[in-house]
Amino acid sequence: MTPANQYLAILHGPNLDRLGERDPKWYGSDTLAIINAEIESLARELGFGTQTFQTNVEGEMIDRLHAIESQCAGVIINAGAWTHTSIAIRDAVSQLPCPVVEVHLSNVYAREPFRHKSVLEDIVVGKILGFGKDSYLLAVRALASRHERSRQE
Amino acid sequence: MTPANQYLAILHGPNLDRLGERDPKWYGSDTLAIINAEIESLARELGFGTQTFQTNVEGEMIDRLHAIESQCAGVIINAGAWTHTSIAIRDAVSQLPCPVVEVHLSNVYAREPFRHKSVLEDIVVGKILGFGKDSYLLAVRALASRHERSRQE
Amino acid sequence: MTPANQYLAILHGPNLDRLGERDPKWYGSDTLAIINAEIESLARELGFGTQTFQTNVEGEMIDRLHAIESQCAGVIINAGAWTHTSIAIRDAVSQLPCPVVEVHLSNVYAREPFRHKSVLEDIVVGKILGFGKDSYLLAVRALASRHERSRQE
Amino acid sequence: MTPANQYLAILHGPNLDRLGERDPKWYGSDTLAIINAEIESLARELGFGTQTFQTNVEGEMIDRLHAIESQCAGVIINAGAWTHTSIAIRDAVSQLPCPVVEVHLSNVYAREPFRHKSVLEDIVVGKILGFGKDSYLLAVRALASRHERSRQE
Amino acid sequence: MTPANQYLAILHGPNLDRLGERDPKWYGSDTLAIINAEIESLARELGFGTQTFQTNVEGEMIDRLHAIESQCAGVIINAGAWTHTSIAIRDAVSQLPCPVVEVHLSNVYAREPFRHKSVLEDIVVGKILGFGKDSYLLAVRALASRHERSRQE
Amino acid sequence: MTPANQYLAILHGPNLDRLGERDPKWYGSDTLAIINAEIESLARELGFGTQTFQTNVEGEMIDRLHAIESQCAGVIINAGAWTHTSIAIRDAVSQLPCPVVEVHLSNVYAREPFRHKSVLEDIVVGKILGFGKDSYLLAVRALASRHERSRQE
Amino acid sequence: MTPANQYLAILHGPNLDRLGERDPKWYGSDTLAIINAEIESLARELGFGTQTFQTNVEGEMIDRLHAIESQCAGVIINAGAWTHTSIAIRDAVSQLPCPVVEVHLSNVYAREPFRHKSVLEDIVVGKILGFGKDSYLLAVRALASRHERSRQE
Amino acid sequence: MTPANQYLAILHGPNLDRLGERDPKWYGSDTLAIINAEIESLARELGFGTQTFQTNVEGEMIDRLHAIESQCAGVIINAGAWTHTSIAIRDAVSQLPCPVVEVHLSNVYAREPFRHKSVLEDIVVGKILGFGKDSYLLAVRALASRHERSRQE
Amino acid sequence: MTPANQYLAILHGPNLDRLGERDPKWYGSDTLAIINAEIESLARELGFGTQTFQTNVEGEMIDRLHAIESQCAGVIINAGAWTHTSIAIRDAVSQLPCPVVEVHLSNVYAREPFRHKSVLEDIVVGKILGFGKDSYLLAVRALASRHERSRQE
Amino acid sequence: MTPANQYLAILHGPNLDRLGERDPKWYGSDTLAIINAEIESLARELGFGTQTFQTNVEGEMIDRLHAIESQCAGVIINAGAWTHTSIAIRDAVSQLPCPVVEVHLSNVYAREPFRHKSVLEDIVVGKILGFGKDSYLLAVRALASRHERSRQE
Amino acid sequence: MTPANQYLAILHGPNLDRLGERDPKWYGSDTLAIINAEIESLARELGFGTQTFQTNVEGEMIDRLHAIESQCAGVIINAGAWTHTSIAIRDAVSQLPCPVVEVHLSNVYAREPFRHKSVLEDIVVGKILGFGKDSYLLAVRALASRHERSRQE
Amino acid sequence: MTPANQYLAILHGPNLDRLGERDPKWYGSDTLAIINAEIESLARELGFGTQTFQTNVEGEMIDRLHAIESQCAGVIINAGAWTHTSIAIRDAVSQLPCPVVEVHLSNVYAREPFRHKSVLEDIVVGKILGFGKDSYLLAVRALASRHERSRQE
Repeated sequence: MTPANQYLAILHGPNLDRLGERDPKWYGSDTLAIINAEIESLARELGFGTQTFQTNVEGEMIDRLHAIESQCAGVIINAGAWTHTSIAIRDAVSQLPCPVVEVHLSNVYAREPFRHKSVLEDIVVGKILGFGKDSYLLAVRALASRHERSRQE
Repeated sequence: MTPANQYLAILHGPNLDRLGERDPKWYGSDTLAIINAEIESLARELGFGTQTFQTNVEGEMIDRLHAIESQCAGVIINAGAWTHTSIAIRDAVSQLPCPVVEVHLSNVYAREPFRHKSVLEDIVVGKILGFGKDSYLLAVRALASRHERSRQE
Repeated sequence: MTPANQYLAILHGPNLDRLGERDPKWYGSDTLAIINAEIESLARELGFGTQTFQTNVEGEMIDRLHAIESQCAGVIINAGAWTHTSIAIRDAVSQLPCPVVEVHLSNVYAREPFRHKSVLEDIVVGKILGFGKDSYLLAVRALASRHERSRQE
Repeated sequence: MTPANQYLAILHGPNLDRLGERDPKWYGSDTLAIINAEIESLARELGFGTQTFQTNVEGEMIDRLHAIESQCAGVIINAGAWTHTSIAIRDAVSQLPCPVVEVHLSNVYAREPFRHKSVLEDIVVGKILGFGKDSYLLAVRALASRHERSRQE
Repeated sequence: MTPANQYLAILHGPNLDRLGERDPKWYGSDTLAIINAEIESLARELGFGTQTFQTNVEGEMIDRLHAIESQCAGVIINAGAWTHTSIAIRDAVSQLPCPVVEVHLSNVYAREPFRHKSVLEDIVVGKILGFGKDSYLLAVRALASRHERSRQE
Repeated sequence: MTPANQYLAILHGPNLDRLGERDPKWYGSDTLAIINAEIESLARELGFGTQTFQTNVEGEMIDRLHAIESQCAGVIINAGAWTHTSIAIRDAVSQLPCPVVEVHLSNVYAREPFRHKSVLEDIVVGKILGFGKDSYLLAVRALASRHERSRQE
Repeated sequence: MTPANQYLAILHGPNLDRLGERDPKWYGSDTLAIINAEIESLARELGFGTQTFQTNVEGEMIDRLHAIESQCAGVIINAGAWTHTSIAIRDAVSQLPCPVVEVHLSNVYAREPFRHKSVLEDIVVGKILGFGKDSYLLAVRALASRHERSRQE
Repeated sequence: MTPANQYLAILHGPNLDRLGERDPKWYGSDTLAIINAEIESLARELGFGTQTFQTNVEGEMIDRLHAIESQCAGVIINAGAWTHTSIAIRDAVSQLPCPVVEVHLSNVYAREPFRHKSVLEDIVVGKILGFGKDSYLLAVRALASRHERSRQE
Repeated sequence: MTPANQYLAILHGPNLDRLGERDPKWYGSDTLAIINAEIESLARELGFGTQTFQTNVEGEMIDRLHAIESQCAGVIINAGAWTHTSIAIRDAVSQLPCPVVEVHLSNVYAREPFRHKSVLEDIVVGKILGFGKDSYLLAVRALASRHERSRQE
Repeated sequence: MTPANQYLAILHGPNLDRLGERDPKWYGSDTLAIINAEIESLARELGFGTQTFQTNVEGEMIDRLHAIESQCAGVIINAGAWTHTSIAIRDAVSQLPCPVVEVHLSNVYAREPFRHKSVLEDIVVGKILGFGKDSYLLAVRALASRHERSRQE
Repeated sequence: MTPANQYLAILHGPNLDRLGERDPKWYGSDTLAIINAEIESLARELGFGTQTFQTNVEGEMIDRLHAIESQCAGVIINAGAWTHTSIAIRDAVSQLPCPVVEVHLSNVYAREPFRHKSVLEDIVVGKILGFGKDSYLLAVRALASRHERSRQE
Repeated sequence: MTPANQYLAILHGPNLDRLGERDPKWYGSDTLAIINAEIESLARELGFGTQTFQTNVEGEMIDRLHAIESQCAGVIINAGAWTHTSIAIRDAVSQLPCPVVEVHLSNVYAREPFRHKSVLEDIVVGKILGFGKDSYLLAVRALASRHERSRQE
């Protein structure tokens, strides 16, 4: 059984506070609050707490990454536009003591070329994209499964 | 309820017949048979049949893609090395009447640069990579969820 | 006649708070306060209110862009150095419910190559550059003219 | 007069077996059988037999190219997606004892950039593209005209 | 039956007035007058009038393109060296009310790399190259066939 | 007061004689005559005469640029497609004894990549684009304002 | 003798607050507080005060750069990840009234290619890298020596 | 002494079945059968058996590579055109339990640029090219020498 | 002795009619008439007539190149800005029946990068640049010397 | 205490024998002899002997690098123009049994682009540049500090 | 029989005098003297004399290449780092009256990208690399075999 | 009159000692001694002494450039292969107190692409190429003419 104090950190980057108000073609119509609630619900079902966070300020995301504690079982990050450019966030991510999954709501490869490059992709465990809010939910499952497996070893 | 004749097609490209015998650093130690069995089990649980296929011959993969029928609820393809080069397979994938998910066992972005490019990525629904055999299982869930949602609309 | 509550938002990016103190070769000797006053004066003459804003923090600019209301008749943005790199600001700009004009004080094309690329230029209505503070004033006229025309249709 | 045993070889690459079932925007609604029949009919009218061939397996195309006999008056090849990548087919084409014409149904230059490159284009006699099935028929005429002229010299 | 006043416009770019006097390796030994006569003869046979034009002055070609009338059934253009560089001619071509075919006497892909790029190729219906004067004649047939088909719809 | 003999030269490049007949998506529905009249009217109001000129022949544009006299208060040039390629026009522009403004009707950055490069942009005073005929009118104001300011110094 | 009110500003960019907790392979095991103390001590010995500053927020670094006063004898900046991307910080640095030295703890050229580019390097006086905390201490000496020399002139 | 069951695998890629019938300028006039015989003869002299294989089907080459057994003392592969493009073959080669030597009949560097790139070259032991059939014979010696040396250690 | 009817053709491209009025930094202060007179004088001294020509219209230059007669002993061309872009002039130059020398007044390699590329340079006999009007005079000598030598063989 | 026989090797590449006679804008007015004397003096003060060497012949620099003995405590190399191109010197440097520091008198990043690349930078310990002769003196201190620290471990 | 005065020239470039003292990972532990002795021994066995040469000075290698006499039966060159950069050595090699083989001890393609380019590779007969000292010995055999064959013709 | 002690320095780079023995296609059949004699003769006629020098060692060329004295009226350098790569020679050339002319025997632009780049071309006065030994003789005249002109000013 996973200890009660094990949690997942869910981090959302710039403009994601506007989900549900933005072009539904790429991002769907659910708000961030709804998505966070679904993530929390699934995580609880799989035995994990959650900590969710959104910011439009790069430095606040970095501070948040620094604050990840060792009982964190995994990080799910949708760094939004910073995915493509922020080496500062990459550096903070690369220091984390737990597995990280990169997610995107939309299929970034079907969009502008500048969205095809991720500065995080080679330092995360894996990447899930294109499934709308399911991208997050699948990442919760991926981390739970990985956690289970590493506990068995 | 999903009709009994709905199925998922799971397609594996070149060298994947050697899983479990290859360098476990990137691909884990399970054989393709074991992975197919786990996929089948999860799909059944979620109400889908499965059709699995592996080939090292590009033309056979194309033929198999041509044979996908309309009652197919989704395709999961790990095109292996062809992911990076085969426009012929891209063309066959682009004609499919159902959603396609691209999966990879390893995090291809943490490997050689030539593995970073996918000729399929802009025509699939989404992409899951880096979770070993879980990449396939998450893709099964992604397609089931999507199928459920489109049936509700 | 333009309704009294129609306004233009004038947004200034990083380092523009130092105008008039910086190298006059590229930026002239007027301070930002003087420029804002001239913009306000011309806008009022053409029947618009104005809201001006400057920040050196990218996240604050994003928040400000999110706060643009529907009665805004147009946005004039000099994103400064972010023009060349910030996809996060591009994403926020691309959601605006009103026309946006990109302006620059200096002729960026007569300067370093990294200033030749704008990540905003393909999503704005138009671009005016090289005329010092007149770049802003011409943008006010451009938006007023456009507004007039769309009201006539 | 052209001897009765002079023939043209018409070679179709991957996915072309699906013509008429694929997106009609690029490829029209005729099946490969219909197109082959029209080619055959025009060729006969101009005094040539025909041998048509389609495969999705690169190695079978190579074998077929090796089998071209000296009484072949010309080869018309639509190598499909291999046009852009297969040096192996290029090598086989470059050994042919007769003129080769490269054809495409669609205007490949109005499509994705990866379709703009042909690895065959510098070793064929000429290239015809963008006229749907007429691309093949014009190629038949081109070879017939060329054959007539070389017989007169 | 095609109405008598339907015509094809045949446009030749720079240096093509020297055909038959230039290096026969790439362009053959026929003069432009001879080629125009053969085009005219085939067009008449297929029910079309012709208007032929050659110039070494880009602006005259643009003026000529502007003068194409609506009863023109199609344009055949060999823009010569301008093919590779003239966006002004591309712009004039893109406004034409009828289908355009790009032709070249030689196989430009077997020549210098700067001849491989065409600024017209993505806005024309199709492209025929490498067959000497037959390139023009095949283009006449291509346009006639296309015209016939569109009249039948 | 501006002396009566001060004038602005308005220069239009290739295909702009067709304005109002071309695709209204990019260029609007006004003819060049209408646009010239509006420019003339605004310039007169601001105290300047105008000389307008259009040509499709690069050499004629160069001759016209050579003919710019010293009492010219400024040049507004929409070099059309030559903007992207003509170093000869750049060389003629670089010799002018008065300020030059580059204008474009459409937002060239929202169009094909080859329209993103200007060979004039680093030698002009400023650039205005994307506002249809207003691009010209704003340029008239920009030059008038600049002229006023330089007279005051 | 250096006046008592002469000081050096030491600026640390993102993630440097975590020094001593991060991968010691690249950055050593000293904390930022320890490093700042050693810098302060050496500076005092050479006759300078110091002002040290660290932030993870780009806008705060820009504000800090704007606040550099004229009695500052020199700036030492380790802009961390911003070194490679932030033109906004470059613009703020380029306005400083005193010499600037760029330092890095690690040899950035022995790491990932994206760390090889500095947007500051052409506007600073010099660059010191690869010596751990000694990079800062050497920069203190470099500025002191430069200051001494310019006072002697 | 080398055990009798030690063998070398000699693998030939696409079009090599046509050796002796192709352009002798690059490949010489010996047929593949003759070359295989010479290889076999030299290998026997040096104490090794041989297994030779040629195919034009990429998937068959992959299957053949998978079938290499542990008593194989070394593989000599002339992958022909696949050398330049087939990551699938690279992946199969990279799993081999024995040293691999890449050979080419011709000096690929004196030919077209696309022949200069090998996707195998960084995972093989060594490379021999330009000596016609001697390339194979030298590779046999290279493997024999290497085998001898590793047995002595 | 050189026959009286042997002549050299001296061709000047766009903007060169303005020599002596343009920036003397690059081009010196002599007018084209003066330069032509010096060329004529030297040529006469060396036994050649001259034909000089200048145009700003590319098509007129092409026509002039077509008019070069067989008794022309050599062509000296300063194609100005067309040097860098006009493939049409290259094509006309490549047909000339006599040696061609490319000249430039200024050292184009010490100027903007777009002046470093010449589309003529690989088809002319030689190139002389950087010596002001002497570039032409040296070219006259180069052609005279070459002519002398070829007459002796 | 550092043993008396510990020394630092100071290596100067091509053209550095001309220091003090060359453009003082980049290199200052001190001769190499003066600089060597200052280096020697500081090194002695810090407890090290010195060996200085300058050559314009790449092979002599390589020989000198081969002659570095194990009691050498560190190498300071200003490879001049070879910094940007000489892989042979890189290879010799990479074999040294002691730490190497790369120095430059000028800030190479504020100069021509070809000076921005160093073939040594990823194999040295660190790099110091832009401080004139102080670059060398700081390098002496850097090596002394590093030596002290490694003796304490 | 090969005449007694036939010899092979074995040329070693920079740093190869240090073989056996350098990193054995890439180059093995044999000294150059040992390798030369083995080459000499094998050459003698095959009927050839040898002349071996090593230098770190490019000009001395060029002089040595100039001194190759016509009775030289072949040259084996390991140009070391010059392989990647020295056009001067390429020019000297291209004049040799006998076949040249390029060799490398290590597999340069498994090392840094700058070692993948050879400026000699397109002008030599063939290339052998990756077999340590066997690379040289195989080259001796290759030249002997080639010599034998050319004597038989 | 030119003072008797005025001289021209003629510098020849690597492999030029072999002129007349090398491929006459590019370099003609005269030896370097003959060419030097013709240069000397023409220079004397024009009132200059000459100093000629050839070396295959880059460092010797640098030393020779350092030795150019102030009474040198000009330098003519054919740096051979170093033209394309040696920044060290560029640095030495850039310090010369007299005008420098770059010459080449052959038209380097009609040869391999790597010969198209010169690292000297932007720092010399002018460039003459393609006229065989006349390239040198024309350079002598160019320097004499320039010298005459600067004496008259």
